Amino acid sequence: MKIKDLRIHSIAIADPPLRSSYGLHAPYALRTIIELESEDGVIGINETYGGESPAAALRGIRSKIIGADAFRVTGTINPAMEKFKVNGLDRSQTFLVPGENPLDESTRTYAAIEVACLDLIGKSVGVPVCDLIGGRVRDKVPFSAYPFYKHAGGGGEGNDLREDEYGEALSPEMLVVQVKQMIKKYGFTSIKFKAGVLKPEEEIETVKQMYQEFGPEVPLRIDPNSAWTVTTSVKVGKALSRELSGGGYLEDPTAGIQGMAAVRKELLACGVEVPLASNVAVTSFKDLPATVAHDAVQIILCDHHYWGGMRQVQHLAKLAETFNIGLSMHSNSHLGISLMAMAHVAAATPHLTYACDTHYPWQSEKDEVVKGGRIRIKDGCVAIPEKPGLGVELDYDQLERGKERYRNVPYKKRDDEAEMRKHVDPSWTRVLPRW
Amino acid sequence: MKIKDLRIHSIAIADPPLRSSYGLHAPYALRTIIELESEDGVIGINETYGGESPAAALRGIRSKIIGADAFRVTGTINPAMEKFKVNGLDRSQTFLVPGENPLDESTRTYAAIEVACLDLIGKSVGVPVCDLIGGRVRDKVPFSAYPFYKHAGGGGEGNDLREDEYGEALSPEMLVVQVKQMIKKYGFTSIKFKAGVLKPEEEIETVKQMYQEFGPEVPLRIDPNSAWTVTTSVKVGKALSRELSGGGYLEDPTAGIQGMAAVRKELLACGVEVPLASNVAVTSFKDLPATVAHDAVQIILCDHHYWGGMRQVQHLAKLAETFNIGLSMHSNSHLGISLMAMAHVAAATPHLTYACDTHYPWQSEKDEVVKGGRIRIKDGCVAIPEKPGLGVELDYDQLERGKERYRNVPYKKRDDEAEMRKHVDPSWTRVLPRW
Repeated sequence: MKIKDLRIHSIAIADPPLRSSYGLHAPYALRTIIELESEDGVIGINETYGGESPAAALRGIRSKIIGADAFRVTGTINPAMEKFKVNGLDRSQTFLVPGENPLDESTRTYAAIEVACLDLIGKSVGVPVCDLIGGRVRDKVPFSAYPFYKHAGGGGEGNDLREDEYGEALSPEMLVVQVKQMIKKYGFTSIKFKAGVLKPEEEIETVKQMYQEFGPEVPLRIDPNSAWTVTTSVKVGKALSRELSGGGYLEDPTAGIQGMAAVRKELLACGVEVPLASNVAVTSFKDLPATVAHDAVQIILCDHHYWGGMRQVQHLAKLAETFNIGLSMHSNSHLGISLMAMAHVAAATPHLTYACDTHYPWQSEKDEVVKGGRIRIKDGCVAIPEKPGLGVELDYDQLERGKERYRNVPYKKRDDEAEMRKHVDPSWTRVLPRW
Repeated sequence: MKIKDLRIHSIAIADPPLRSSYGLHAPYALRTIIELESEDGVIGINETYGGESPAAALRGIRSKIIGADAFRVTGTINPAMEKFKVNGLDRSQTFLVPGENPLDESTRTYAAIEVACLDLIGKSVGVPVCDLIGGRVRDKVPFSAYPFYKHAGGGGEGNDLREDEYGEALSPEMLVVQVKQMIKKYGFTSIKFKAGVLKPEEEIETVKQMYQEFGPEVPLRIDPNSAWTVTTSVKVGKALSRELSGGGYLEDPTAGIQGMAAVRKELLACGVEVPLASNVAVTSFKDLPATVAHDAVQIILCDHHYWGGMRQVQHLAKLAETFNIGLSMHSNSHLGISLMAMAHVAAATPHLTYACDTHYPWQSEKDEVVKGGRIRIKDGCVAIPEKPGLGVELDYDQLERGKERYRNVPYKKRDDEAEMRKHVDPSWTRVLPRW
């Protein structure tokens, strides 16, 4: 199955002003859509991180892809995936948002090609991607509600504003309203709450109000993206030991594997069993020996986009199972192609022990590039359709609009700190730990 | 790709009187050949452990396979793979030969079906198996010479004797002759020597003579299958520190993960860097946390037949790479289908850091069941052919002969200890450690 062409499309999609410890989401998030076309004219597609750097990396590997066989090229370019075997450098996401770490370039680029190949293969032979990589162990993949503190606005700028579906939410009460709205619309049965924005006391209160509202049957997770000291992390863990138990977790409360290990140790010493999860301290296979040795993390949030693709996520899942570590899934602002890729790899990964994250509710129909519009999330789940490949195809008109938006945005990389200074506080800098 | 039929063929193949710490190989080794036929009439094949128990396990899963989709069934039956999650039971191969551990039944059975599915899929879509599971990272897979102490005889019984190609070999000198003969015929560039048979002093002498003969460019491995105490293991490691370095290893000198860890610790304390390898102490994912925690093993010998198939071996390889553990491959008496399956999974596994084991030189053309006769090993390597699936098809006449031999042999499971008593020493029992 010879690959005739690799097309790389940089797009921008409206994104609401969501807050996190990294800063503020810009009015547009950047994504890259790729197409792999076979000699038979079948087109495999994929979605990955956006902006100039990921697109340049894909252009850089283009000559190895064109003319290659879709089944084999993932083997051929595999050695390149581990290009950055650099010891001593920080590959975590502590200081860089996902997609912006140069050390991840090789795994990111490999993943983008791998998934596009799998979609191309699946569409060529008439088989869903999850069944190409081992066979589905589930037909429906559960995702979590993903509430954020946010400013007013639905994303976009100027004449291109999106409806502000959820409104401003900068207090515990407003967050509860946001979650109720999301659960009503999508049927989520668990909640992942993005924290690290307000003072810890207010975020504790937010979780408590959510627990009060939704009860113990809805697992709760809180993720401040390393905003806290070890002491604060332990304090929050203790304060929320009831609310975060029973399928919940405390995600990346503090920076680094050593910091996480210290939090874990202190929590256990206090008799608090709340598990720690990570996609900031632990972002690559290189991080795992120390993670295991120090019991730093009890749940890893995988992400095929930067762990090196679907098969690498499956490797990670088996490794996690082996070492009695849970597995959840990380997300970034994304469209339906990424959502379907996440769903397919999750469907074919036995050891997925938590509902996955997704930013999908934050994106708008207007920005979706898959034919037929947005993917349906029902009862909190994405169903694997009886369609070949990822089960989605490109809407080229929508893609063109996304490319036009990309040409128009002044920024070509994600920088939540700059946005924070621009829109909220001109003197804002990211301080770690902040509390 | 609906599966119409699963056919299970128990066969017996002549096997020379090879010795190991388990005892003596019987005149016939037992194998199971399976066929998966799709509705389109394409036939996927595979080879696995023989005798009644593995065949019965396959018959037991038959109803889940017939009517299933070849792409999906590996997902459907996946939960069954981990049936024996029994803590506290010994899943190692310390006391049971490979293929005879009841705790491996689920992974063995899963593996047998998975590889047959991959062959069926590959043959249906025209793609080699290695390219279905991630894409080849190498076109040729290196194997080692596998010398054994042996009695006179080429295998088989009565009127069905095989030529004794290598003759008796029960001394250091005779082993060197055996290896020279193997290297001349197959071009091997490394040697894995099955020990645990003569006194350690004689086995040390055997390795020294091999080193003398073949020089440091031919890596040497010695495998006594747990025959030694920790003290003896350390003594041998020290005595052979030069001969086993530079790509060699000391494989399962003593029993158990704790024993291996003790050997490693003592060797390092003496400044001996010879790495330890295992396929006896470490045979499943359950063994890995303790292995890693105690630095018990520096090389794992994978085997898709009992680790749960090709994808599980790929998971294992990534885990090994992550924890800085080398990867080699274990073998049992086998024919060309297993050899090709081993070659395909090795071809698609980046982190394969040692040449693989194979018993293939010990089998005879007369017993081979693949069309066209024995697979070629050239320059010590098996080349991945430009053929779909595993690249081999069944010779049904040869298969019928194997089935007839199976019907005629009185034993339906491997028992090297019984053979030892029958042919060598009526009072022989396996003593661990023996020295």
